[in-house]
Amino acid sequence: MEPLKIVVIGADAAGASAASQAKRRQKDAHVIMLEKTQDVSYGACGMPYIIGLKKDMEEVVAVSAKEFREKRNIDLRLNEEAIGIDTKKRVVLVKNNLSNHQYELNYDKLIIATGAKSNLPPIDGITNEGVFSLKSLEDGRKLNKYLISENCKKAVLIGGGFINLELADNLKKRGLEVVILEKLDNILLEYTDEIRQKAIEELQNNGVKLICSVDIEKIDSPLKVITNKDTFECDVVNVSTGFKPNTDFLIGSGLNFFSNNAIDVDQKMKTNIEDVFACGDCATIYHKLLKKHVYFPLGTNANKQGRIAGINATGGNEVFEGITGTSVFKLFDLGIAKTGLSLKQAQDAGFEPKITTIVANEKAHYLPNNKEIIVSLISDIKTKQLLGAQICSYDGILRINALSVAIYANLKVSEVKYLDFAYSPPYSAVWDAVLICATQADK
Amino acid sequence: MEPLKIVVIGADAAGASAASQAKRRQKDAHVIMLEKTQDVSYGACGMPYIIGLKKDMEEVVAVSAKEFREKRNIDLRLNEEAIGIDTKKRVVLVKNNLSNHQYELNYDKLIIATGAKSNLPPIDGITNEGVFSLKSLEDGRKLNKYLISENCKKAVLIGGGFINLELADNLKKRGLEVVILEKLDNILLEYTDEIRQKAIEELQNNGVKLICSVDIEKIDSPLKVITNKDTFECDVVNVSTGFKPNTDFLIGSGLNFFSNNAIDVDQKMKTNIEDVFACGDCATIYHKLLKKHVYFPLGTNANKQGRIAGINATGGNEVFEGITGTSVFKLFDLGIAKTGLSLKQAQDAGFEPKITTIVANEKAHYLPNNKEIIVSLISDIKTKQLLGAQICSYDGILRINALSVAIYANLKVSEVKYLDFAYSPPYSAVWDAVLICATQADK
Repeated sequence: MEPLKIVVIGADAAGASAASQAKRRQKDAHVIMLEKTQDVSYGACGMPYIIGLKKDMEEVVAVSAKEFREKRNIDLRLNEEAIGIDTKKRVVLVKNNLSNHQYELNYDKLIIATGAKSNLPPIDGITNEGVFSLKSLEDGRKLNKYLISENCKKAVLIGGGFINLELADNLKKRGLEVVILEKLDNILLEYTDEIRQKAIEELQNNGVKLICSVDIEKIDSPLKVITNKDTFECDVVNVSTGFKPNTDFLIGSGLNFFSNNAIDVDQKMKTNIEDVFACGDCATIYHKLLKKHVYFPLGTNANKQGRIAGINATGGNEVFEGITGTSVFKLFDLGIAKTGLSLKQAQDAGFEPKITTIVANEKAHYLPNNKEIIVSLISDIKTKQLLGAQICSYDGILRINALSVAIYANLKVSEVKYLDFAYSPPYSAVWDAVLICATQADK
Repeated sequence: MEPLKIVVIGADAAGASAASQAKRRQKDAHVIMLEKTQDVSYGACGMPYIIGLKKDMEEVVAVSAKEFREKRNIDLRLNEEAIGIDTKKRVVLVKNNLSNHQYELNYDKLIIATGAKSNLPPIDGITNEGVFSLKSLEDGRKLNKYLISENCKKAVLIGGGFINLELADNLKKRGLEVVILEKLDNILLEYTDEIRQKAIEELQNNGVKLICSVDIEKIDSPLKVITNKDTFECDVVNVSTGFKPNTDFLIGSGLNFFSNNAIDVDQKMKTNIEDVFACGDCATIYHKLLKKHVYFPLGTNANKQGRIAGINATGGNEVFEGITGTSVFKLFDLGIAKTGLSLKQAQDAGFEPKITTIVANEKAHYLPNNKEIIVSLISDIKTKQLLGAQICSYDGILRINALSVAIYANLKVSEVKYLDFAYSPPYSAVWDAVLICATQADK
């Protein structure tokens, strides 16, 4: 009998997890992992930090091609891109990006893990030298080298999302002047006013210039970003204005898609087509609180979905209970995190939400390193259900995980206020800021 | 009509919370708070840190006597000790500790919040000058002054519990030599081997000498601790070997007591006698996982219980859902925390528990401040229910709160492994150490 043939498209977080898990569970399976680039299994989230640390970009690689091949016995095919699938014939049409050779690859189980790509605005000059869009490892390599080779002193970051915020922090650490240009009238719109304000102060206190309501007119060469407000001369530009799923090659395949063309999956990572799975940034993900699938592309989610796809493609029955929508980023010394729904998301989902925000001591007041922490909780006025939480903190941002679990478990703020949180003066006030906020929210 | 007369015995965490809450809810009530010492509402947990910081011990006071009287309109009676109660006549027998005058104080509602006292071993010489037992604010004041006035260079700490561990840390910060003497053959017995070992290494790396299996023979003057192993000359001794509830004055009152003479209460802080409440370190507390009352004296618990007693003594109906048994302490740079049950506690409670322990990266591996984190999970082999968790970590000990919530919500390790924890390289690896441990535990 032929061994089970599993084809995984994509070798980053989701694909690598899926392939590894499948091969581990079914040792005699033939697991083929196609990767259109030369790069596998890297932590893209780490690239701003590598830049700040002036390290080698290769350090973000988690598992090497050699390890996939020799230790994990996965048939990894680099520079081979899936350009179409035929789910009736059960074949993937593959193109080698070096030789342009094409071939048909048949499968018993197919796992699509093609990730996402930058969703770039149509700016004149966006392909000029010195203009980057940090997303792939190759983007990171090139930017990292360019900063040195061109001895960059001034950076303009287009888009005020978390990639550019992290990049601002790390470019400042390298001594660059940094300007962030945001199209909308503010950044961090999902956050409450108090937390957004604190984040903006942290940017300002560290010398990053943030300008909102900016329309980019064009990018000139030598580098110059021309906008409706001003012209910004600089040595380097990064454009990060969101992602879209890498699913164009699947048009007409019969797969069902979400509104943004992410692949619709169920809680087992199955698509609507038998024996075809999808996972990671190219797919939707189940939201525990909203009780429906959403698009929430994050490395953590991709790893979990990949593992589940690998298990279920080899006869398992793993069910993903869903995300709560947790994310965190660091801005200089400040941690900023959220979980669950924002006020607007909660309203849109049919809840009757309110926001409660408190500012409190993070630690015992007599400790010299005590600073203020801000906690915002979003809760339903009628049922008291905790719907969302946001924190900014210098030293205890992992409190967000406790609130993620509280949302997962459908706790009410009347329960959250008495939760058994760890107390010791170096870590918390005797009433933890989260409990203080929940007590307020329960009134 | 006479105003409601509420007598609160004790003015530290639980009593102060109860009195404040009662007065806030019922402005016309006469709230009398008896305190046998001159001190009110202080954070005893902070005293080792004040010592380490060479600060004024008064900084641990949260609310002053003046504020209770003038802002909160509470009839605070300092140096007045309850020496008996008659629940049929509804009176408290009060003695003024300065004048020795006694009087009967009648009540409509009685809240007992007398806390705990050091449970000292019968050591010959334990009352010598230079021998302390850090528990009350007055103990803290005296020790803090003695360290300076006697220019202490060497300390012997009898008992290897968390007070002496925190004291060891803070005395080292002041430059003292520190020896800890423990009667049992090890310290931190509720912790898993790996975490205990890490804690002991942290002590050793910071120059604290820990000696176990020590029987103290006597304490001589000039200060010398004579043991079965060696004689330790020193300038100062602290004995911290556990607590017992301050309930001797209640013998014969008709109240029901727990095995260690803590007052039995229900989840509303009611005792077995009508209109008599108890809270804080003199009372039991409901354990959510064990589904029964236990003795777990901690400042956080006292504050919560006090608040609930104050609410229910003024006609409220607040129910305490219970602790999970969370605690944390800091040993030099290392945080050590637990929640839920230890293996032995889980076995004793009739579970079929196992321990899973992992050592992992706390943060992204390429960050220079990444260190190792140890996570131990205790889970039931049959049901997979999470029963306990222990962590030691340099930079992310608040992960314990998420596990406290997971235990509160009766989650299984098969759910914990996919929880939506915050990920960003400065805070976590892409698979958080807790999720890695839960994945192992689920196998």
